Amino acid sequence: MLSQTRVDRVIKEMKERGLNQMLISDPVAIFWLTGKWIHPGERFFGLYISTGKTPIMFINALFQFEEEIGVSKVYFTDTDDIIPILKNHINSEEKLGVDKILPARFLLPMMEQGVAKGFINGSIAIDETRAAKDALEIEIMRESSRINDACMEEFKKLVQPGITELEIADQMLDIYKAHGASGYSFDPIVAFGKNAADPHHMPDQTALTEGDCVLFDVGGVYRNYCSDMTRTFFYKGAPTEEQKRIYNLVRKANEDCLEMVKPGVIIGSIDQMARDIISDGGYGEYFTHRLGHFIGIEDHEYGDVSYTNHNPEKPGIVHSIEPGIYYPQANIGVRIEDLVLVTEDGHEILNHYSKEIEIIE
Amino acid sequence: MLSQTRVDRVIKEMKERGLNQMLISDPVAIFWLTGKWIHPGERFFGLYISTGKTPIMFINALFQFEEEIGVSKVYFTDTDDIIPILKNHINSEEKLGVDKILPARFLLPMMEQGVAKGFINGSIAIDETRAAKDALEIEIMRESSRINDACMEEFKKLVQPGITELEIADQMLDIYKAHGASGYSFDPIVAFGKNAADPHHMPDQTALTEGDCVLFDVGGVYRNYCSDMTRTFFYKGAPTEEQKRIYNLVRKANEDCLEMVKPGVIIGSIDQMARDIISDGGYGEYFTHRLGHFIGIEDHEYGDVSYTNHNPEKPGIVHSIEPGIYYPQANIGVRIEDLVLVTEDGHEILNHYSKEIEIIE
Repeated sequence: MLSQTRVDRVIKEMKERGLNQMLISDPVAIFWLTGKWIHPGERFFGLYISTGKTPIMFINALFQFEEEIGVSKVYFTDTDDIIPILKNHINSEEKLGVDKILPARFLLPMMEQGVAKGFINGSIAIDETRAAKDALEIEIMRESSRINDACMEEFKKLVQPGITELEIADQMLDIYKAHGASGYSFDPIVAFGKNAADPHHMPDQTALTEGDCVLFDVGGVYRNYCSDMTRTFFYKGAPTEEQKRIYNLVRKANEDCLEMVKPGVIIGSIDQMARDIISDGGYGEYFTHRLGHFIGIEDHEYGDVSYTNHNPEKPGIVHSIEPGIYYPQANIGVRIEDLVLVTEDGHEILNHYSKEIEIIE
Repeated sequence: MLSQTRVDRVIKEMKERGLNQMLISDPVAIFWLTGKWIHPGERFFGLYISTGKTPIMFINALFQFEEEIGVSKVYFTDTDDIIPILKNHINSEEKLGVDKILPARFLLPMMEQGVAKGFINGSIAIDETRAAKDALEIEIMRESSRINDACMEEFKKLVQPGITELEIADQMLDIYKAHGASGYSFDPIVAFGKNAADPHHMPDQTALTEGDCVLFDVGGVYRNYCSDMTRTFFYKGAPTEEQKRIYNLVRKANEDCLEMVKPGVIIGSIDQMARDIISDGGYGEYFTHRLGHFIGIEDHEYGDVSYTNHNPEKPGIVHSIEPGIYYPQANIGVRIEDLVLVTEDGHEILNHYSKEIEIIE
């Protein structure tokens, strides 16, 4: 059912940016606004919102549905040209907000056929609104991360002599489902030893070897909301002194940064803190990515925790804090990641899984 | 490694459309051209090709790689603005082909900052080239569909009293992997009885009941190429006479349409044939989608088999033929789908799974 509260919040943000009409084509944003999740594939799917009018949903007849959800429905078929249909409903005398993911195959002909007077990336109006989670969303995200904590405990048990990364990864989906998740929030990263020094390593046939670190970057979906956590364990023989130093440095960055989170703090300053800690420890150049990202219905939502983000933290925001050091010279990559919620006067860490050095024998 | 043959074929198609430069941002197209598959998420990733120049790959530093693959690499980080970097390499005095999926968040600022003299959806140049599979691709797709046939045999065995759609769907991934596929080409559709009358039904907790039809629309990925097949079985008590009539009508549409496939035949006429057969049988209005879609690295590639497609079949094209009748009044939906390859002088059906009426007792 359409959430008039959320629509109104978006319209308020639109108006602040000089927009009176917007065409949303991101199925996730449409789900968030209407409760209806359609996977249109390459087909067009859109929600048009405009001040003072009932929102219009443009739906391929393949996905028709009967229930009334508080929108006007406009159906079309695979053989219809969607552009003139849009033109019938959109005010061509005004500029139109479109969202950031609207693909060129729709945007270019909309421009050519004069569907609106100008086109603006208006996603920010939705993104800013979506970033601040409401009470129901927070409740669900808490549970989603609780499930992730419980799953991490089980993943650790899979670390057995000779097992490959892929053999572990292949068991994760069933474990999530057994714990009440509907699926992954992203394909899990399982990385042993030097592989962990690639922050985006995908699990492969690498077999576990003594002296390896074992990095799990994993998340599940619970009631449409994502979890996301990283822990780095050690296997027999590890860690060396240097590996221990690296681990503790990452852990300090993770914990000190989490501690900073509260309303009003400039988000970029948290990233800077992580960078300072890791640089002071001598590994600055091996922390090669932003400190974190916002999260919710999607694993990566608008809003990143990087030193270029000059916005302040606001209540309701949930983001990751995930410093890392990627140092193949010492056969290691370490990342420690938690989700944190900005509360009215501070923060709440959604993950509770231990960050002590754990050696799996 | 960059396939110069494929790049040359694309450049030829570009020139026929008046384009000398193109920025490709579809990771699948880039993989097809370079052999390098990167999953950039929301980050920019692009391949710039231009007559007589070495292609340039724009890569987020997170995804850096060492091997030489025949492109110039331009790295950037999460905190860089990609638009001026693109502007440094793209000829701003000429129009630029972009691909259909380029999102507004990149396209709108490229326009505002004058990265090129005009922007054209140039995807067709790639899509037309990709549609005609080469010998290696055909070999792989044959094997991919062979795996799908073998998996269908196993899926049928899962149809047991009281089982739910979801319980069957949850077992499919392991079966694909056991047969050598790396994953799904799309989330499998498992639909019992009336649920099958929704062509896009997602498996749910519906339990199998006597008199149900059982529809499986499934596909796996083998060496990056997709399979896709649908079969509709019957469970105890089904089919009724009317259900049998519906099944045989869909089967006739499937078989007669497959028979038509050869170079030169107008693709839309095949769709029309299916529509005529089903209309003549009295169920025309219950066949609610196009007859098929092209397929390859992606389950749905450019090119559809619908009556509005006036292009002729060409050797190397692989597409589905999937007529259906969705008729909840008789507690049934039937779809029968095979993949077919257009050969030099006819066609080759890639699926060999039986289409006889099968009643699971």
